Amino acid sequence: MDPRHAPLFEPIRVGPKTFRNRFYVAPHCSGLGVEYPGAQAYLRGMRAEGGWAAVNTEYCAVDPESDDSPWVQARLLDERDEANLRLMVERVHEFDALAGVQLVYMGADHTGYVTRLPAGGPSQVASAMSGHSCYAMDKSDIRRIQQSYVAAAIRARNVGFDLIQVAAREGFSLPLQFLWRYWNHRTDEYGGSLENRTRFWRETLEQVREAVGDDCAIVAGFCLDSFNDTSDRAFKVSDDGVGVVELLDDIVDLWDMQVGHLEDDVSSSRFFEPFWQRGYIEQVRPYAKKPIAAVGRFTDPELMARAVGDGVIDIIGAARPAISDPFIPIKIQEGRAEDIRECIGCNMCVSRFNNGGGRIVCTQNATVGEEYRRGWHPERFNTSDRAEEPILIIGAGPAGMECARVLGERGFEAVHLAEADAEIGGHVNWVSQLPGLRTWRRVVEYREAQLAKMSNVTVLTGKHFDLEDVLDYGASTVIVATGASWDRTGTSPLTHVPVAGADAYPTMVFTPEDVMLEKRAVDADRVLVYDCDGYFMGSSLAQKLAIEGKKVTLVTPADQVGSYLFHTDEGGHVMHALLDLGVELVTSHTLDGIEPGTVTGHNVYHSAKEISWSVDAVVLVTQRRSRNDLYEQLTAAPDRLRSAEINQVLRIGDCVEPRVIAEAVFDGHRLGREIDTPDPATPLPFIREQRILGWREEDYDGILRHVLPLTPVSRTSLR
Amino acid sequence: MDPRHAPLFEPIRVGPKTFRNRFYVAPHCSGLGVEYPGAQAYLRGMRAEGGWAAVNTEYCAVDPESDDSPWVQARLLDERDEANLRLMVERVHEFDALAGVQLVYMGADHTGYVTRLPAGGPSQVASAMSGHSCYAMDKSDIRRIQQSYVAAAIRARNVGFDLIQVAAREGFSLPLQFLWRYWNHRTDEYGGSLENRTRFWRETLEQVREAVGDDCAIVAGFCLDSFNDTSDRAFKVSDDGVGVVELLDDIVDLWDMQVGHLEDDVSSSRFFEPFWQRGYIEQVRPYAKKPIAAVGRFTDPELMARAVGDGVIDIIGAARPAISDPFIPIKIQEGRAEDIRECIGCNMCVSRFNNGGGRIVCTQNATVGEEYRRGWHPERFNTSDRAEEPILIIGAGPAGMECARVLGERGFEAVHLAEADAEIGGHVNWVSQLPGLRTWRRVVEYREAQLAKMSNVTVLTGKHFDLEDVLDYGASTVIVATGASWDRTGTSPLTHVPVAGADAYPTMVFTPEDVMLEKRAVDADRVLVYDCDGYFMGSSLAQKLAIEGKKVTLVTPADQVGSYLFHTDEGGHVMHALLDLGVELVTSHTLDGIEPGTVTGHNVYHSAKEISWSVDAVVLVTQRRSRNDLYEQLTAAPDRLRSAEINQVLRIGDCVEPRVIAEAVFDGHRLGREIDTPDPATPLPFIREQRILGWREEDYDGILRHVLPLTPVSRTSLR
Ligand SMILES: Cc1cc2nc3c(=O)[nH]c(=O)nc-3n(C[C@H](O)[C@H](O)[C@H](O)COP(=O)(O)O)c2cc1C
Ligand SMILES: Cc1cc2nc3c(=O)[nH]c(=O)nc-3n(C[C@H](O)[C@H](O)[C@H](O)COP(=O)(O)O)c2cc1C
Ligand SMILES: Nc1ncnc2c1ncn2[C@@H]1O[C@H](COP(=O)(O)OP(=O)(O)O)[C@@H](O)[C@H]1O
Ligand SMILES: Nc1ncnc2c1ncn2[C@@H]1O[C@H](COP(=O)(O)OP(=O)(O)O)[C@@H](O)[C@H]1O
Ligand code: SF4
Ligand code: SF4
Repeated sequence: MDPRHAPLFEPIRVGPKTFRNRFYVAPHCSGLGVEYPGAQAYLRGMRAEGGWAAVNTEYCAVDPESDDSPWVQARLLDERDEANLRLMVERVHEFDALAGVQLVYMGADHTGYVTRLPAGGPSQVASAMSGHSCYAMDKSDIRRIQQSYVAAAIRARNVGFDLIQVAAREGFSLPLQFLWRYWNHRTDEYGGSLENRTRFWRETLEQVREAVGDDCAIVAGFCLDSFNDTSDRAFKVSDDGVGVVELLDDIVDLWDMQVGHLEDDVSSSRFFEPFWQRGYIEQVRPYAKKPIAAVGRFTDPELMARAVGDGVIDIIGAARPAISDPFIPIKIQEGRAEDIRECIGCNMCVSRFNNGGGRIVCTQNATVGEEYRRGWHPERFNTSDRAEEPILIIGAGPAGMECARVLGERGFEAVHLAEADAEIGGHVNWVSQLPGLRTWRRVVEYREAQLAKMSNVTVLTGKHFDLEDVLDYGASTVIVATGASWDRTGTSPLTHVPVAGADAYPTMVFTPEDVMLEKRAVDADRVLVYDCDGYFMGSSLAQKLAIEGKKVTLVTPADQVGSYLFHTDEGGHVMHALLDLGVELVTSHTLDGIEPGTVTGHNVYHSAKEISWSVDAVVLVTQRRSRNDLYEQLTAAPDRLRSAEINQVLRIGDCVEPRVIAEAVFDGHRLGREIDTPDPATPLPFIREQRILGWREEDYDGILRHVLPLTPVSRTSLR
Repeated sequence: MDPRHAPLFEPIRVGPKTFRNRFYVAPHCSGLGVEYPGAQAYLRGMRAEGGWAAVNTEYCAVDPESDDSPWVQARLLDERDEANLRLMVERVHEFDALAGVQLVYMGADHTGYVTRLPAGGPSQVASAMSGHSCYAMDKSDIRRIQQSYVAAAIRARNVGFDLIQVAAREGFSLPLQFLWRYWNHRTDEYGGSLENRTRFWRETLEQVREAVGDDCAIVAGFCLDSFNDTSDRAFKVSDDGVGVVELLDDIVDLWDMQVGHLEDDVSSSRFFEPFWQRGYIEQVRPYAKKPIAAVGRFTDPELMARAVGDGVIDIIGAARPAISDPFIPIKIQEGRAEDIRECIGCNMCVSRFNNGGGRIVCTQNATVGEEYRRGWHPERFNTSDRAEEPILIIGAGPAGMECARVLGERGFEAVHLAEADAEIGGHVNWVSQLPGLRTWRRVVEYREAQLAKMSNVTVLTGKHFDLEDVLDYGASTVIVATGASWDRTGTSPLTHVPVAGADAYPTMVFTPEDVMLEKRAVDADRVLVYDCDGYFMGSSLAQKLAIEGKKVTLVTPADQVGSYLFHTDEGGHVMHALLDLGVELVTSHTLDGIEPGTVTGHNVYHSAKEISWSVDAVVLVTQRRSRNDLYEQLTAAPDRLRSAEINQVLRIGDCVEPRVIAEAVFDGHRLGREIDTPDPATPLPFIREQRILGWREEDYDGILRHVLPLTPVSRTSLR
């Protein structure tokens, strides 16, 4: 270990518990909750195995009124929930880490879609997040919900959790709603002064401690500052944050701190630097005698060591860094920090959850969420009994790189990764040159560094492979990973046909690759960016062109600019940036025609509502098209494949279907894991956890486990 | 039975099967799929019990590539899916109905969020629905996916399904994507001419029939017309629709017809009349020798009898009417059509699904989706051994009316429903006067008619009950259902504080109730409607005022006008209507201040981007506030309750938490069912279906069943 990192490995007391080091996985959603108990247990257990001292659940409901369905949270309401979370605790303990649970009651942020119950809040105000309202809690409601916290805490203790967090973290937790004047308009002893507004939290913390005694450490998950609220009732670290720490430091064992609501807290690298929260924490530090854990997209051991060494925080909290690499602590400890698969801050992980409560995925770590159901371990790979068969991968974008890396890890003896460009990396090389996206380069850097260490993987750059080159190469397996490129015709998800004039005036029309890859100069003062893609590309290009001084109009047929950005918690920041740059935003409009100097369109909800723009250039961000020709040529020539002794031709990534980087990486990873199955084009089955009528426990694990490569079957102490 | 309805009860042959009558439940989502097999089985089984001849599943994936998660569909991919759907088939058969399954492969409309697979389509175009793309299927892909249809059909047959639908219904089905030039840009024998575009469907139908032989009837779910596509590649009933029927009539047993995409097909009553599809079906009728079922929000037996009697269709298809009242056929047959609980066409049922794949609910039918997990039967009610205790309900809105109805059905001997207004109905009375919402009056009409029949329920109107009135009344149970009213200050979910000036210039400021209930005249040419509510109220008032000739500006802090309307499949229609009326739409803006003649605001994403409007009146549609005073007064006076011999005071509906009508109705219904439990304020537990580690089959049903009132425990023939 680098001696500068040693402070990160000093044990620390946290109430009745001891952290073996300074690494703490902050509470975060997975889309698993108590619905998918095996996946939940193995996801969290992997961090324990990776060296973290403590590992949390996601938000966990203490009362049926705190129902966020269809978004998936955890729950501790009855013995069934206990049965399911017990496996997580066991997995975490198996690797000598502490298990933490985050107790939450959502108030007006609830949906109530499954339980169909109302929920209470300090005052009757509606939630901008859920669109729902709440009842104003009277004293008996307060006692009742505090009882729910206590009951859930006792269940947590019984299950074996070591850390019990009573969260005032993120907006959707009742203690925070009592703390903030934004939510709390009460005039009784639970409203008004800071002391009064802290009362609900204080009482709940005390009651929980009373109930679980010294069996568990009590964690105060605390949002220090409301961040983007500039009104006079904002919750500010300088007075409110400091005040709360003063009031409660005595009765908590650990502070788990963050700043702002989810869209700021889960701060994307496009807008936030790592540990931007430092200035906030420094303000409360003098008032906290208890250890502080705090988050800050920590992937860099130097930054971590400084934060702890300077005494600003005691414990490194992390959500995304642990998603991207569960083995950060062990890698630092073993002195191989360069092997850390650093989070890129893209927030794909949180986006699936935001979009209807979907399961967690990660751009960098294809194994997240797959630990149990596919038996994938991020750091361990099966060897193959067909390792000597040479494999040629064509295209070194995310999919090709990841596939080569996995094959390399698996010990295949001759893996060749061929790339036409001078550098490997594929579209990430130019995408990461867009404003704010430079951190995305880590997708390439991590894989480049790993591949460079593997003597069994050969990287060939600067050669475009055509059919003959492939046939001549001598590999028995060929994997096509040739990617995708942007459509030049304006064909969009909405219309499925070209925009009139896109072909007639090619000098006026640009694709994202024209601008970024070919560096074709946009010689125009007034530019229209047409975004039908709905993710980052449209707004990023608008941002770039506006920064370059152009007058930019961003037109989208959707009702939101880059609507998927609202799932990655970036939407508000993107809107602010575009407005700040003076970009004109036109939503709900589609383009009809392009002519020199003029572009016409109409409202998607009313074709008679026409509109035109005077612009000199149009950037079409409409859809991508797979570069699938090589695959088609290969599969069209089975005889030639046979004579070239090519046994199988497979394809991965965007050349199959254009998709987000996370899915291209996944696709490459999956094929790398399963290249030597009888039918590698078809993924092995995975364990779906759900009620199956008439099935027994063994059926879930057992029937599928025999085909899955790794990870022992669950061995929970069943009742 | 009314003799005019007799044709609806003539049996009809459908291939190898016989329908006992002309009632067919069309495929529709429930949010249950194969994830909640008990709930799924009991939901569908209830329609069989209610007299429908055939009952369908929702869309059911034939291949893992057709993954729509987190939206919940059914699946027939393996023996686990078979095990779960078998119970549905058994429940349906138990009541002598036929069970149908709708086989679907979604193409580009997939998400792939769980399986992480790409999906194929006729051509590589992206989907406006999912935002995802697809791979262009080659011949071997076509064969492979057809094999998946066949395999799923065989599983369906083995499970016992009688009807197998190969759907080209709704956009998200591959045969439809091959049919439409919108999706299909192929130049091979699967593209181009109508015959070519029909090839995929024809082959698939043939292969499925070949595989299942005469064990099942083969249903062609067919979207006759693309409806809102005015381009020259639109799919039009007059040529394409007719042509397809001519080409395929020979090889199908039943046509299941609908028109347009979901947002038109699930046609809300705000914009569509019942059976608006008639003109479309009349065009294909001459070419179909096989029976035609078609949908049309059929709740009126006369309309049904005419449609069948005229020979336009042979079978009444229904989704929403059956959700709202599963007992329509039996009620018609028994000559009590006036008891039908008619669907109001509000589309709340589909909205939960659209919003993240949530479980089905219904405004009219509180028991939908609760048949299994809470043991609720829409037509059967437990009697109580405390039926003699007098119950007073205060407030006859949806919550109070429904509670009184359930208590009446349960045989409580003295149920008194008190209402201050001259009429019962609560806010629905004035809401249903908004443009297009008159059908919503059925919420009142149905309950009014049912209550009128109950000698044990007394309705008292025209008297406002205060604390003393309640104490004097002599009821031992008091249920407060006093509802909610709109905030007058501009306090919104976003800001939680009043809009400056809202109180200072009251003559300029209106609430929805001012306009609709008090009929306060909006004496102004220029009106601003401020919609922070996000559902129908803002746009409905804007519509109404614009129809009255005012110049209306609709401002909302959201990025969409009435964003929840996009979940009810009404959003596009509302936008069109507003644009048509010349309403100015301003999204993403919040109001800062109101002054005579001027309203100021700013962009929610950038406070420096200020804006002002010259208007003479402002309608504030920001949030509702519970009318909870009476409940507070009652619970604050426990001694007085005791001396008045009032044993319990409970509250339901909007006076607890303002919510949608469906939830207020649910709340009243739930309390009616459980008023005589030891703690009626706390709902009885319900069965959550999920994997529970270490639990056995009996534990799901058994442990909870003893507390649940009704419905026998699942008695599936477990393996
Ligand atoms: C996918 C995801 C889900 C999250 N869910 C929760 C949650 O359930 N409760 C909570 O308090 N914070 C939640 N967070 C916030 C994290 O705990 C953390 O504060 C934030 O991600 C910043 O830390 P990081 O920079 O280490 O990711 C979530 C974050 C992510 C990325
Ligand atoms: C909640 C809901 C879900 C639906 N899901 C499906 C579906 O899965 N497959 C399908 O073909 N149609 C689906 N539909 C459309 C219905 O089958 C039907 O065509 C439409 O609701 C019009 O019929 P109705 O007026 O009787 O409701 C759905 C409708 C509703 C209300
Ligand atoms: N015929 C070819 N020979 C070598 N490299 C190719 C060939 N066709 C495409 N490539 C490379 O394949 C890579 C594909 O990367 P990318 O578009 O990022 O796809 P993905 O996201 O699927 O990995 C690009 O770097 C491109 O230069
Ligand atoms: N004190 C009262 N006495 C009698 N009726 C009342 C009283 N307060 C409110 N109401 C009535 O209660 C009804 C509440 O209906 P509504 O607002 O639609 O609520 P919900 O949707 O919860 O049923 C209204 O019709 C209102 O006139
Ligand atoms: S998805 Fe992106 S932000 Fe999330 S953990 Fe992975 S790399 Fe980091
Ligand atoms: S929710 Fe509304 S549209 Fe749907 S079935 Fe019920 S009443 Fe009809």
